[in-house]
Amino acid sequence: MKPMQYRIESLGECRVESPLPSLVAGAKEEARILQDATLRELPADASEPASLELSGPMSKLYFDPKNTRAAIITCGGLCPGLNDVIRAVTMVLWYRYGVRDILGLRYGFEGLNPDLGHAPVRLEPELVEDIHQQGGTILGTSRGKQDEKQMVDFLQENRIDILLAVGGDGTQRGALDLADEIDRRGAKIAVVGIPKTIDNDISCTERTFGFQTAVALSQPSIDSAHMEAKGVRNGIGLVKLMGRDSGFIAAYASLASSDVNLLLVPEVPFSLPKVMGFLEKRLEQKSHAVIVVAEGAGINLVPTGGTDASGNLKRGDIGIFLKEAIKNHFQQIGRGVSVKYIDPSYTIRSARANADDSVFCFRLAENAVHAAMAGKTRLVVGLWNGHFVNIPSTEVVRHRKHIDSAGPLWASILSNTGQPNLA
Amino acid sequence: MKPMQYRIESLGECRVESPLPSLVAGAKEEARILQDATLRELPADASEPASLELSGPMSKLYFDPKNTRAAIITCGGLCPGLNDVIRAVTMVLWYRYGVRDILGLRYGFEGLNPDLGHAPVRLEPELVEDIHQQGGTILGTSRGKQDEKQMVDFLQENRIDILLAVGGDGTQRGALDLADEIDRRGAKIAVVGIPKTIDNDISCTERTFGFQTAVALSQPSIDSAHMEAKGVRNGIGLVKLMGRDSGFIAAYASLASSDVNLLLVPEVPFSLPKVMGFLEKRLEQKSHAVIVVAEGAGINLVPTGGTDASGNLKRGDIGIFLKEAIKNHFQQIGRGVSVKYIDPSYTIRSARANADDSVFCFRLAENAVHAAMAGKTRLVVGLWNGHFVNIPSTEVVRHRKHIDSAGPLWASILSNTGQPNLA
Amino acid sequence: MKPMQYRIESLGECRVESPLPSLVAGAKEEARILQDATLRELPADASEPASLELSGPMSKLYFDPKNTRAAIITCGGLCPGLNDVIRAVTMVLWYRYGVRDILGLRYGFEGLNPDLGHAPVRLEPELVEDIHQQGGTILGTSRGKQDEKQMVDFLQENRIDILLAVGGDGTQRGALDLADEIDRRGAKIAVVGIPKTIDNDISCTERTFGFQTAVALSQPSIDSAHMEAKGVRNGIGLVKLMGRDSGFIAAYASLASSDVNLLLVPEVPFSLPKVMGFLEKRLEQKSHAVIVVAEGAGINLVPTGGTDASGNLKRGDIGIFLKEAIKNHFQQIGRGVSVKYIDPSYTIRSARANADDSVFCFRLAENAVHAAMAGKTRLVVGLWNGHFVNIPSTEVVRHRKHIDSAGPLWASILSNTGQPNLA
Amino acid sequence: MKPMQYRIESLGECRVESPLPSLVAGAKEEARILQDATLRELPADASEPASLELSGPMSKLYFDPKNTRAAIITCGGLCPGLNDVIRAVTMVLWYRYGVRDILGLRYGFEGLNPDLGHAPVRLEPELVEDIHQQGGTILGTSRGKQDEKQMVDFLQENRIDILLAVGGDGTQRGALDLADEIDRRGAKIAVVGIPKTIDNDISCTERTFGFQTAVALSQPSIDSAHMEAKGVRNGIGLVKLMGRDSGFIAAYASLASSDVNLLLVPEVPFSLPKVMGFLEKRLEQKSHAVIVVAEGAGINLVPTGGTDASGNLKRGDIGIFLKEAIKNHFQQIGRGVSVKYIDPSYTIRSARANADDSVFCFRLAENAVHAAMAGKTRLVVGLWNGHFVNIPSTEVVRHRKHIDSAGPLWASILSNTGQPNLA
Repeated sequence: MKPMQYRIESLGECRVESPLPSLVAGAKEEARILQDATLRELPADASEPASLELSGPMSKLYFDPKNTRAAIITCGGLCPGLNDVIRAVTMVLWYRYGVRDILGLRYGFEGLNPDLGHAPVRLEPELVEDIHQQGGTILGTSRGKQDEKQMVDFLQENRIDILLAVGGDGTQRGALDLADEIDRRGAKIAVVGIPKTIDNDISCTERTFGFQTAVALSQPSIDSAHMEAKGVRNGIGLVKLMGRDSGFIAAYASLASSDVNLLLVPEVPFSLPKVMGFLEKRLEQKSHAVIVVAEGAGINLVPTGGTDASGNLKRGDIGIFLKEAIKNHFQQIGRGVSVKYIDPSYTIRSARANADDSVFCFRLAENAVHAAMAGKTRLVVGLWNGHFVNIPSTEVVRHRKHIDSAGPLWASILSNTGQPNLA
Repeated sequence: MKPMQYRIESLGECRVESPLPSLVAGAKEEARILQDATLRELPADASEPASLELSGPMSKLYFDPKNTRAAIITCGGLCPGLNDVIRAVTMVLWYRYGVRDILGLRYGFEGLNPDLGHAPVRLEPELVEDIHQQGGTILGTSRGKQDEKQMVDFLQENRIDILLAVGGDGTQRGALDLADEIDRRGAKIAVVGIPKTIDNDISCTERTFGFQTAVALSQPSIDSAHMEAKGVRNGIGLVKLMGRDSGFIAAYASLASSDVNLLLVPEVPFSLPKVMGFLEKRLEQKSHAVIVVAEGAGINLVPTGGTDASGNLKRGDIGIFLKEAIKNHFQQIGRGVSVKYIDPSYTIRSARANADDSVFCFRLAENAVHAAMAGKTRLVVGLWNGHFVNIPSTEVVRHRKHIDSAGPLWASILSNTGQPNLA
Repeated sequence: MKPMQYRIESLGECRVESPLPSLVAGAKEEARILQDATLRELPADASEPASLELSGPMSKLYFDPKNTRAAIITCGGLCPGLNDVIRAVTMVLWYRYGVRDILGLRYGFEGLNPDLGHAPVRLEPELVEDIHQQGGTILGTSRGKQDEKQMVDFLQENRIDILLAVGGDGTQRGALDLADEIDRRGAKIAVVGIPKTIDNDISCTERTFGFQTAVALSQPSIDSAHMEAKGVRNGIGLVKLMGRDSGFIAAYASLASSDVNLLLVPEVPFSLPKVMGFLEKRLEQKSHAVIVVAEGAGINLVPTGGTDASGNLKRGDIGIFLKEAIKNHFQQIGRGVSVKYIDPSYTIRSARANADDSVFCFRLAENAVHAAMAGKTRLVVGLWNGHFVNIPSTEVVRHRKHIDSAGPLWASILSNTGQPNLA
Repeated sequence: MKPMQYRIESLGECRVESPLPSLVAGAKEEARILQDATLRELPADASEPASLELSGPMSKLYFDPKNTRAAIITCGGLCPGLNDVIRAVTMVLWYRYGVRDILGLRYGFEGLNPDLGHAPVRLEPELVEDIHQQGGTILGTSRGKQDEKQMVDFLQENRIDILLAVGGDGTQRGALDLADEIDRRGAKIAVVGIPKTIDNDISCTERTFGFQTAVALSQPSIDSAHMEAKGVRNGIGLVKLMGRDSGFIAAYASLASSDVNLLLVPEVPFSLPKVMGFLEKRLEQKSHAVIVVAEGAGINLVPTGGTDASGNLKRGDIGIFLKEAIKNHFQQIGRGVSVKYIDPSYTIRSARANADDSVFCFRLAENAVHAAMAGKTRLVVGLWNGHFVNIPSTEVVRHRKHIDSAGPLWASILSNTGQPNLA
């Protein structure tokens, strides 16, 4: 047998009886979920297939709820569901475990840097009761991380036992660095991540919160593009949706609408001349067209605007680029078109979670708390093959999910839009 | 007595009995609505105060429904309610008057230019039944007008008796030119306008369709700006709303939200340094700010981008200008701010009408049909002091409504936003 | 000249300078709005036509903001906009006038009965900032009134200067009784009403808050009735909407939908056999029908269920009655129908106000505060011919608004539904 | 090796080349998805674990698109997404396979009974283009089935090759009976089911369409119940949601809302006295309570109203029963409560699908078409462990999914509502 993959680390032995009724029988605490649910030939060496640890309440805890101080941060860009997560973490810690000492740190990792002087918020049921009805995050957020030493100093000085970090892969990398420094000091602080990417491109979880809300809230923009396109002769409606490295939002939003004629995503290459050729034909036949483009599509086409402060290439905006390119092309061939460009990104990411995401946020947060109270660390919670699972953070940050251009999702897109190969 | 103002012109004597039950007693057909409903001293010369003709079904018609051909065009930018109007015109003509010959001309005035080859659509109940559930216009639209002679040729060749023109003041000016040419030829074609301006700035009507929908649909963008602003330190949310000459949408949207800290409209001057000073103070106190700006505000500040094909100065974009100006200002004074800019215009104007506007569209269209069937011409229908009225088109195009900076609406804005005088 | 009608009472001379910038010039403080905006012959005696006092900020106040204690109650059933009103009253008193002592009394008039022990809530900007985003009322409500003596005792003991009563005509009657007792004691307490009736049937104001929201929120139910009706053979969708004495919600909701085939309201009589005859014909032709009925329609038809505790006849439910009557009728004539009955009342009345109502609530509340600070009393604020006005409470409770079955609204209904006379 | 379970039947060998680009490589056409994705010890006999056939386009078809006639029926109660399915089936058959002969049969199985005289609708892209924007079903529906012989006669006489049956387990049972009769005649007609149950309780598919929409559309009713409950002293808001045999909608709706204090579902027993005891305590502490009850909960408590035409016990209404029981209980113990009861069922089931369900419907329909064109029969399509799968219809009708009261979903409910064991 090969060593088990995706094993979750722990701070130590669990000796505290859980106040939670043991809903999941003891034996099931060891349950694992197969990474690949397709039926396969057994490998010759009979090694165990890759699997992920099932999440859930443990019968024994590492931390005694009476003396536990937990803290939560929200990092990176806004995403529907942040307040749902903050609320659920607070409610489950408070009512299910009896933890009475819960801090909301302000503005992401900045809240762990005492130099910045952001006072933590004390999270209590009364305070968080209705916050899930608002978008944004009551804690505020920031990008980037702070110095690990300073942050662990902060955690130790404030006797924080559990840090829940809500954020994307950058945040989870930051959390790992933090956990490394905690390890080096031999401190007993659980660092548990709740993955946040509206793009749904974090690996090892089939879903991230905010994604379904984003797909739903994309619909009015696509409808508008459709109406604007149909409202004039040779109208083209162009919608840019989120998706820096993967086009899941754009793909699901297009399928949901069924009014999109051309979808451009980062994973599927296309050439500008072929796009223009496709549009020419479409306008001849139907006199209007609707295009959805993911922000990371056609990266090679977009001129960058120099480098930013950190020396990174500043990526241009594919939406604005395409709008101008289409206008210019049709002007050159002497055919008037009217291009209406819509970018709903801020309106989507700052909205409250829809019902589906609210359920998901609650259950994700609940399982993050279960893991943390059991002293598990360096993990994020996720959903896999229908089960909530604990995933080593190291796995999560290793690579991203992408649309497989030879897989069933892209096949559905081709069926839905009717678009040809434009590479 | 001075001559009566705002008198409506007519094609001739009404001799056809109306198939409509006479809901409004004969006497009331002469009713008029005071232009100014404030109680006033009687003028010395006892002249009659200005008043507008009450709209409604007439007991006698000019056109015989059995032999009447009506046509409708939709002109200018999209606006919520266009399909409601097309539907209502069709339904009322068909079911109430028994007119069976109704044409939808395509793409605004272009539909009256045979050179462009847009075939009219035959409007029937079955076709239009559900169109009010979609935004846009099933007829399509275009900007600008066509040659009057050509258009009247078209009307005469196609034996069209009634032309209903849905559009803004440009369109109504075009309709007047058309009516002039009709007059010159002694033709008997009624030209009746249905005013369309999402900005609600057409004079003589207290309301235009699409406006309330626009106010309602502005809310998610302002909410987003609020959440984005509160989500980071020194966050500024900036929303640009429609309003080229008047700030009604921006004003009502701000009142509805109650989260706006600064409203900038075309009617109330402001200086950029004072705006920056206000923002500095606001960020110090509250760490975030929400700004709403009407597209025509600060016109003097925005650099224009040369002239367009017709030689008109191309107006710059106040939203983008402000975003950059704020960023630059705070960079210069060494304070980091995060400005999130949202422009929901296309998404708003292409949406379907909300319930309130749907009711308004139906009643407006109904009254336009009543007027046209009675042979009234060179008028638009509107709402005044709670009554539907017929207004001479010449009055409608004469000037625009504006927010009175010394009036109660602006006073409400100051109460709501708390903003100071920034001129 | 006849004595002026609709004159507003006052507690005494205004001697305190207002902190508000005098947006409305002094002269305009006397402005009045004609009750009837139709142009009319001057009466022989040249008496002044009936008019209402224009609302707005006064240059002089009766109460000194530094020492003023204001209180607000919300009474009767829930209605969209209650929290908007509470919020706006608080904000305008606090920020515009500088009043720092504002009490929210709990559960309507119960909050003025110390025996019930409901402690008031101290209203401050921080507390009310976001409440307009929720339906209901943060203060709670109750039906009926309490003993006037006890209530005035409470007001005096708590040194309350201003009582703002948000409620329907029952509430305004209660407020008048309270004001009478205040008068008898020679106390100087301003009692100002903010009219609340989702049915929009309070006289002297062309609009009440919550009404437009109710019309908008009726749409999904009518859509559902339509879909359910069309989804089966001989399907009938039946929606009951609010409207005890007047059918405005049902009428506007039907116009907005344009899918209603039969509207039944309290103001327009109908016979059950004629309704059944109409439905038989409709099903033969179209195989489905959509009916909207206002709760107070056909009151004579509905058997009552005895008397309630106060001896009042308990009115039966016209919706359930009609559903059964239709089923029975078609069973008797041997034709199967499927009747789907929808009653969305609670869902509508407990919702948050829509944008239009939020604006209206803010401005209504603002004007109520202006009137109260100027020592005006025994009035409610309203909207008339496009202006906010102060109306003597005695007028408001005198009678209700109704749909005029010979007027333009009902004519629009007939045009829209195509329904015949069913009396 | 034991014989493979869940094997899909086929009409015969596939010899027609598919016009679809082979997105899924040939080898993968044999792929299967494990029924149970938990990691398990290998059984001693090394038998193959249960698995389901992966759905998707096949490289070879049984039916030649040029000569194929397909038909679709929608059966049972309305459910969000029916029109999405009709549209997607039409579009994929037409554009992807080139099938030009597609019939929509009216009113479920009634459409296969020529005695009833419902003429089929010819489904073409133009007709179905926008139907997904409306709730209901453009084909109409009915309950129950028709005589198999008559129905197969119809299929044969009309030379229908493929019948797609959209409906719940009753419908799929009916489809199996039909397929049996087809088999007996040796006819080559593919019968493929698309499972429809808003309750999400069909086995072998982790999801059914309409369910997520139902959860989302339950939220306003729960919000209303919450606002009504909080708006008065001792207010109780009671919402009945769909769920005859399983409480999934009620459970997810409660989790999404997070304002529910008590959830009652069919799977978890409760006693009325314990419910009342819980409510007494809750009102003492918080003065309000929100209850959600699934329609099939407490079936043993509800008195039935005799038997229906078929001799089945007519089940009483748990919602109305609970409302009365609560009122009576608190009246008996001398405490006034105000119970507001909301039943949004029709409004939910007749709504259009939300974005998430629209995507799901498209992909489900697409896979049903793939299976049918390949001559597969007696199957339904579903989703399992993240993959679309083909499931033998016999498995689907065998039993229903239920909430496991010892599983993670119910644990989340207990964490969310805080409710105790009430059995």
